[in-house]
Amino acid sequence: MYAFSNAVNSMHSEDIKQLMKQASGKSLISFAGGMPNNDLFPVKQIDDIYNSLPEDIKKLCFQYGPTSGYPPLIKSLESYLKNKGLAVEDNRILITTGSLQAISIITQEFVNEGDIILTENPSFLGALSVFETARAEIHSIPIDKDGIDIEALKSKIESLDRKPKFLYVTPNYHNPAGIIYTPERKKELLEVLAGTGIILLEDDAYSDLYFNEEEQHLTKSMKSYGAKDVEIIYTGSFSKILGPGFRLGFMLSSEEIFEKAETVKQAMDACTSNFMQILANEFLAQHKLEPYLKFLRNEYLERKNLLQKHLKTYMPKEITWNEPKGGFYIWLKLPSHIKSTEIFNESVTKGVVFVTGRTFDPASKKDDRLRLSFSNMPKDSIEKGVIILSEAIKKVLENSKIESL
Amino acid sequence: MYAFSNAVNSMHSEDIKQLMKQASGKSLISFAGGMPNNDLFPVKQIDDIYNSLPEDIKKLCFQYGPTSGYPPLIKSLESYLKNKGLAVEDNRILITTGSLQAISIITQEFVNEGDIILTENPSFLGALSVFETARAEIHSIPIDKDGIDIEALKSKIESLDRKPKFLYVTPNYHNPAGIIYTPERKKELLEVLAGTGIILLEDDAYSDLYFNEEEQHLTKSMKSYGAKDVEIIYTGSFSKILGPGFRLGFMLSSEEIFEKAETVKQAMDACTSNFMQILANEFLAQHKLEPYLKFLRNEYLERKNLLQKHLKTYMPKEITWNEPKGGFYIWLKLPSHIKSTEIFNESVTKGVVFVTGRTFDPASKKDDRLRLSFSNMPKDSIEKGVIILSEAIKKVLENSKIESL
Repeated sequence: MYAFSNAVNSMHSEDIKQLMKQASGKSLISFAGGMPNNDLFPVKQIDDIYNSLPEDIKKLCFQYGPTSGYPPLIKSLESYLKNKGLAVEDNRILITTGSLQAISIITQEFVNEGDIILTENPSFLGALSVFETARAEIHSIPIDKDGIDIEALKSKIESLDRKPKFLYVTPNYHNPAGIIYTPERKKELLEVLAGTGIILLEDDAYSDLYFNEEEQHLTKSMKSYGAKDVEIIYTGSFSKILGPGFRLGFMLSSEEIFEKAETVKQAMDACTSNFMQILANEFLAQHKLEPYLKFLRNEYLERKNLLQKHLKTYMPKEITWNEPKGGFYIWLKLPSHIKSTEIFNESVTKGVVFVTGRTFDPASKKDDRLRLSFSNMPKDSIEKGVIILSEAIKKVLENSKIESL
Repeated sequence: MYAFSNAVNSMHSEDIKQLMKQASGKSLISFAGGMPNNDLFPVKQIDDIYNSLPEDIKKLCFQYGPTSGYPPLIKSLESYLKNKGLAVEDNRILITTGSLQAISIITQEFVNEGDIILTENPSFLGALSVFETARAEIHSIPIDKDGIDIEALKSKIESLDRKPKFLYVTPNYHNPAGIIYTPERKKELLEVLAGTGIILLEDDAYSDLYFNEEEQHLTKSMKSYGAKDVEIIYTGSFSKILGPGFRLGFMLSSEEIFEKAETVKQAMDACTSNFMQILANEFLAQHKLEPYLKFLRNEYLERKNLLQKHLKTYMPKEITWNEPKGGFYIWLKLPSHIKSTEIFNESVTKGVVFVTGRTFDPASKKDDRLRLSFSNMPKDSIEKGVIILSEAIKKVLENSKIESL
């Protein structure tokens, strides 16, 4: 039951139904889960931290904390974010129960039913579900390999009769598209938003997971560009740098936005777990994060390289993709006449799952892509998974040729 | 900073300002905090649990889990709730990030801006802040020593032009009033609601904390009374039986309400921390809860007895209260011509704080009570705290006599 639930994390509900019909009892090779593999977690480090906590701090683990967060963790995050070039002095940190809660808080703070939110297309499924639950009107803007389509964004904003409340983007190692915005595109985006009063919600869950040290500077957040006429709320997560099970995230925003967000958070779950915050704080304060990230980057690079190699070997030539420079995902492009969902229906019967393209389209339509996650994949399953998936794709391609005769 | 933040937990914002003005740097005796004392937490038990987790379960601590909760914890909670007489078979459990999140989810599920919610007066501050954040119209019903005022509830419901979405009550060892509803009053309440379509939201955070084994049966929840024509949502918490720092609570409801609640939870924080759920599950599954509760009941009884004894000795005769049979609180009643807030302003200068009556009135007005929490109080501070508080009350009483001359 548990492994199954992990395998289906972030899948489209129709795909899950299909999966349950086909795969009950079978062992799955899953390219679906957008989470670290269980074998990658820093279990030993957290063991050491837990067992050397002083008694009074351990007691504090069990207690309520301030709504804004455990003060030492806020301090540690300040250093962490300062290192990323963020102006923490002019902003406030709110610690949240995962970065999804930050997105949820911001939505509750700014969005009433029927208000407009702009997103990328494709976009992070979790955020889309927050916006849908708030009954916002979602308008999405296509992205290309360098980031959001600037002209499309401009004309979208011009065409709307009301001002969107915010634009939600994940510029670094995008989920699901795997891309990173170029610095030029980031700058252009800020120029488009300047003076419009549209808030930029910059979700930065993956920026520590670059594959090449020399490209780290490309992960620089827009929040740190110093644009004076764009209000930017920056969100981050511990899910990719420690573990999703901690349910720890944070937002960095102006004092004014922080204050209202703190009130919303207070009414959502009072405060974030002290227990989890104290362990996370020690992880940062004892400088265990950077060595762990080095290990992670290497692990993900190896997985990416394996997936890339096998895709090159086995995929039919009609299938294309961009090689990611970091993060968790490869975003395959299909010929326009076949659908990701058809391939899913075929591959699931052979025991391979992934997330279909339409899952990430706010309109649940655009289905010419499929997301392969390599983060949760044991290295020795990658080749087998790619072979099965390639066969499924070939079969769907052949069928489509027969049908078009 | 941290101890201060704990001391002010659940205080009225105006009182906090007053406190900060007066008490900076001073050591405080706090009757304010509605939480267990740090020295009472089961640190040793959780140490043992953590250090004997099998490796694969420890890895699972770091991972995402299903939105509804960690399946083994749901199983353990089923047994726990079955022992309380609850019909878990006909209902579903949703695990939440603290029981406040359950209240928040239910509010998001049922309440739109301007909808009516019924509460007790006084009522739990955390819930009130959820209802206010949702911009609900709150109507409150007085309670007496045996529970909610049935006649006042009837006439309130009759007087309203719209059906309230739900009635929120905390029948067992009420926060702040310290009372427990009599079985008759629980029955009468169910009769009033029968067939009205008003949901009963039964918040049961304290029922394990009775002082007298023979009175345990009085804690029987209304959800377990088997009323067929009242929809009841039952919420519970680990904050009082394990530690608030775990941020673990749950709700038990019909399948239909559960399904919508799960969707709301999904968009609020995706899932509750696996780490915290796994530790809590072992605490239940290894039968560590019942011995710990025996210890807690004894500790709280001793504190209650000490507070009761010193109040009898030192309080002026104008001050009255009911002796609680469980829970955390004694709810002092003042003569109608003096205000809890005046006493607070006096006592805070001498280093004693509590929570003022108006804090628990949805209209922030009724101020003829004050809440003393004994749960968070070191035993050897109780007498000194009561002496200082009594002096403050006497001074305010004398001033009021002089003014009325």
